[in-house]
This record gives sequence, C-alpha cells and structure tokens, in this order.
Amino acid sequence: MKQQKYITLAHGNGGRFMRSLIEDIFARHLANPRLDVQTDAVVLPEIQGELVFSVDGFTVQPLEFPGGNIGSLAVHGTVNDLAVSGAIPKYLSLSAIIEEGLEFKKLELYVKSIADAAKEAGVEVVTGDTKVVPRGFGGGIYFITSGIGARKPDLSVGINRIQPGDKIIVTGSVGDHGTCVMLAREEFGLKGDLQSDSACVLPLTEIMSQFSGLHFMRDPTRGGLATVAHEIMRARNLRVRLIEVQIPVKDPVRFVCEILGYDPYYLACEGRVVVFVAAEDASRLLKSLQSHPAGKDAAIIGEVEQGSPCVILQTELGGERVLEELEDDPLPRIC
Amino acid sequence: MKQQKYITLAHGNGGRFMRSLIEDIFARHLANPRLDVQTDAVVLPEIQGELVFSVDGFTVQPLEFPGGNIGSLAVHGTVNDLAVSGAIPKYLSLSAIIEEGLEFKKLELYVKSIADAAKEAGVEVVTGDTKVVPRGFGGGIYFITSGIGARKPDLSVGINRIQPGDKIIVTGSVGDHGTCVMLAREEFGLKGDLQSDSACVLPLTEIMSQFSGLHFMRDPTRGGLATVAHEIMRARNLRVRLIEVQIPVKDPVRFVCEILGYDPYYLACEGRVVVFVAAEDASRLLKSLQSHPAGKDAAIIGEVEQGSPCVILQTELGGERVLEELEDDPLPRIC
Repeated sequence: MKQQKYITLAHGNGGRFMRSLIEDIFARHLANPRLDVQTDAVVLPEIQGELVFSVDGFTVQPLEFPGGNIGSLAVHGTVNDLAVSGAIPKYLSLSAIIEEGLEFKKLELYVKSIADAAKEAGVEVVTGDTKVVPRGFGGGIYFITSGIGARKPDLSVGINRIQPGDKIIVTGSVGDHGTCVMLAREEFGLKGDLQSDSACVLPLTEIMSQFSGLHFMRDPTRGGLATVAHEIMRARNLRVRLIEVQIPVKDPVRFVCEILGYDPYYLACEGRVVVFVAAEDASRLLKSLQSHPAGKDAAIIGEVEQGSPCVILQTELGGERVLEELEDDPLPRIC
Repeated sequence: MKQQKYITLAHGNGGRFMRSLIEDIFARHLANPRLDVQTDAVVLPEIQGELVFSVDGFTVQPLEFPGGNIGSLAVHGTVNDLAVSGAIPKYLSLSAIIEEGLEFKKLELYVKSIADAAKEAGVEVVTGDTKVVPRGFGGGIYFITSGIGARKPDLSVGINRIQPGDKIIVTGSVGDHGTCVMLAREEFGLKGDLQSDSACVLPLTEIMSQFSGLHFMRDPTRGGLATVAHEIMRARNLRVRLIEVQIPVKDPVRFVCEILGYDPYYLACEGRVVVFVAAEDASRLLKSLQSHPAGKDAAIIGEVEQGSPCVILQTELGGERVLEELEDDPLPRIC
C-alpha cells in the first residue's frame, strides 16, 4: 500500500488501513517477543513478587518539547508511578487516541520515542489499541499507558510509614518539566535552553530501596512538590516543612516563574522523586543518590513535624509562609 | 465545596478541584477494598493462573445510545478481550480524558455505568487517572480501560489451533451495536427501538471453555464479523466460508443496512463472540450456548476450509461472493 502522509478516519475502522497502521508503525517499532498485534489480550509470564498496577493518560501540548515528547513522557509517567511504589516495571499497555490529520512521520517519531524509553526502562509494550477521532476532537494524539510491575514482598514503603522527624529529599531540581512545556508553547514570547526532566526514575528508586529507613516515595507530577506535600499532610495529619534555600530550582525556572508570577513548587516534574526517609538514614541515602548522575542535585529539603497539619515554607529570609493547596490551574495540560 | 455544574480545566491540575472530582465522582462510585485514590499504583493480590493483559480505548459518539453508554462500553470492551482469550477478568485500570465543559451529572452517569458493569462482570477498578482537555480537544469524554485477567494454565485456545473443518459459531445477532450507535446519531433521520448488544460475554466464554474442541474465540468489534474472518484467513492461510442464511441479523439492522448500503457483516458488535470449534464438538457447544439467555440466538454460521485463502459468503440464492477486507470507514467512532 502506498504510504499516506496523514492519518485518516479509515485508520481507526478495524480494516485494512488500521492493520497497515499497526503493522507499519506500532508493531515495527515496539516489536518484542510478547507483542502479538493479532490478539486483543496477551498472556504474560509469571510475575515474581507482588503485582503492582498503574495507569496514566497523556495530553500534553505541545506534543514535543526540549528533552522529550508525548511518547517518551507516556512511558516515563507510568514507569515512574510503578518505580516510586517500589516496583520494577515489567509490562506496558498502550492506547493511542489519534486525531485525524496527524502526520504519519510525527506519529512515527512519538512511537519510536515510546520504544526507546521503554527499552531504557526495561519494560515491554505487550498490548495496544488505536482509535482515530475526527479533526477537532483531539489534540493531535493522546497516549494512555497502563503498567504492570513486580515488587519485592519484603519492601515496605507506603504513605502510612511516614513519621514525624522524617527528612524530605528531592532527587533533583523542581519545575523543569512544567516550565519547559510552557516555554515550548511560545505563548509568552519567552525562549530558553531548559530541558524537561522527563526520565525514568528507576535507577534512583532502586538505590533508595536498599535503605530500611526509606518510608515513602512519590513523583511530583501535576501540582508539583507542593501538592505532594499536601497529600502527605492530609494522609498523615502532620505538618510538612520545606526549606526554601535547600530546594533545588534551576535559574531559568526561577526566572520564568518570577516574570509570570508562578510558584515553581507547584510546577510538574516528570523525572524527580520526593522521598520521605527516617532521619538516621537521610544523609547516607542522600550521598547514594548524589553518586548517581540522575541524582547529583539531590537535596534534603525539609522534614515532617508534629503540629497542626499544614505545609510550611521556611523562606530565605527566615520567615515562614503557608503553601496552600493548588486551586486554579497555572499550567493546564502539562503531562 | 459547592458542587460545580461543569468540568473546568482546574479539575485536571492535580490540586483541590481534581481531588474533589476524584473523591466525589470516581472514588464514590467505584469504591472497593483495593481502590486507593491516594496512590498512583496499586499492589494486587497474587493471581492464580496465567496473567492476561489487555487495553482498549473508547471514543464512541454519541456518548449514550440505547442499551448503554461510553462507561458500560468501556468495561465490556476490555472485559470481553480478556474473556475471549479464555481468562477470567479480575482488575481494571481506568483513564478518563474529559473535555472541559462536560456536565458533572453526565460524568457521574458514565462513571456509575462503569461501576455497574464492573460489578456485573466481577472486576474491580483498582487504579485510575483523569485528565481534562480544553474545549475542542475532546469528544466530551474518552475512557481507556486496561484489564488484568487470570487464565487456567491448561486452557489452550489460540488462533493457531484453528483447523480446516472447524465450525464457526456466533453467539448472537451481528451488527446491533454499530446500527444502534448510527441510529443514535440521528444524522440519517432514522429511528428505531434497537438496543446495542454491549454486554459482558464472560458467561458465554465460561460455558465454551468446558469444551476441549474449542479452538479460538474473538469478539467481532470494529470491522465486525467479516474482519474476524479476515484475521483468521490471514493468520492461518485458510479459507473461511460464511453461510448467509445462517448468520443471525435482526430485522432493524437488515433494514437500516439496506437503506444506507451498509453490510451488517462489517458492523461492530460489543457483546458477541465468534467461535471456532472442532466439528465434532460444534452441536453440543451450540446447544450449551443456546441454553443461556445471552446465547439463545447462537448459530453455526460457517466453517474453515482448505483452499486459497479468502473469505467467502455463500449467499441465500446458493451463489458465492468474496467478502473483501474492510477499507473505507462505514461508521467511524463506533466504540
């Protein structure tokens, strides 16, 4: 069949064009021993350890940004949800909602990015589904990935293990992804060479899982660091203290936030982990993180305290301000 | 918080409105012991048997149709993919891509339908994700479900077990869902009391799994019966013969197809199974199906033959015509 340039509605109808789309683009790039595009369900090998299951949908605009695109992001997002729960990601399902008119070469770029990111993270895309929606009913393409991981049965991390006195560590600078996507939209007339932090955090979560004092990990995506702090505060009815001078924020992020009136603590990261660790293990865990390239900027940024539940930012000048729960939407469709 | 009437972009930002949306709508209707909306990944109990994994995206327009809506359809679609692979569906992940402006009461209706359909199918929605896209970037709502099922290790069904001489059975009338959605669009000025066949086929697949002569099952969704026949033909390099007078087609479906020039064999079903079974087991399997209310219209509709690979329809008048592979899209966005 002569290759068409753009996706049409016929590529979603179950017939010849859809088969060609799946074979030429998805199966070719994502090929692995378990991916069988002739079946709607796949039988998987036995999982050693506890089964962990996750899902994430991706609607980022624009579809490409410095440091990644919606394809790599769709792998990192779900893989990271598994990794911060202490699991080793194993298998992904992939759903693509494609808008009529998307260029084939763009689709191929995103699917290739999925393949590359999956390979790097050690996961296989084993089952998939494609739908095509008419022009004006989508944002070019949406990807939705669901992931299966395996967790060591003896690994006990969980929000309920967080205790007063726990130190809070972040594995790198915050707000890079959110700021980078915002700049990529060019609607503010700002440009920069900032890259998204979108990445698989598995190397870091594996390092941290060695520490018995590790209590909880979460990736600060939508809503950023401040939203993770609020989740902990609510779930544990404790006070969360963040120390401004210790939170790593890159200069371009700080600069853009100052100009536009955003707070970097509410901006999405896609390759960072916020970690809650017993005080006695905090320094050693930090050193281990910093010895890995992906964790070189890791820092202890605060701690969990007794006291009326709220999220407090200890400011550079020694004052305190309350970080409220995010309400209005500073940056829609960041992931 | 005062309940708002419509979904806004702020319901997707990770903050307070999103939390309220998830708690008030998703968690309330889908509550089960394993669903924890505070985590992005869920630890599942051990699966007895082989692990089966599947995904399906749903973009049907209109969102509601006689016999179901996009919520119930999103459960049936993925549950059925697992069931026809011989598995017992266990767990679902749910991703919702919601368009700004969707009415809360509509969202609630669809989520309640998901809950009801999941309960009926015996599956639990254990993890989820919501995104909100701006007006003009979605079709009201898209749901994407990924499913995990358990399959008996000794159950051997698979496309490669299909042999020449196998009988082909369909568990009920074909084309109901496609026709029904088309009528619900009202763009043709036709109306009728036809209901979608959207349903969980697990009761039927469990009956069939008792038969050692069961070779393969598939649900004829997009592309319909004819597309399943083509998949078998291609995968096995065999001829597939369908016998027109034996294929159950409801009168309203036949009527609408005649008026609009569609072929019911290419229209989607969402609650039927096409079955390939050894000839010696065919009559007994058919009787077992017919003894269940969901299979009362089951029929033997053809067989697999040696010969040059093609899909042949033996017509009412005794002639033969070749059913070509579906090319143009008769009915986009049927599921």
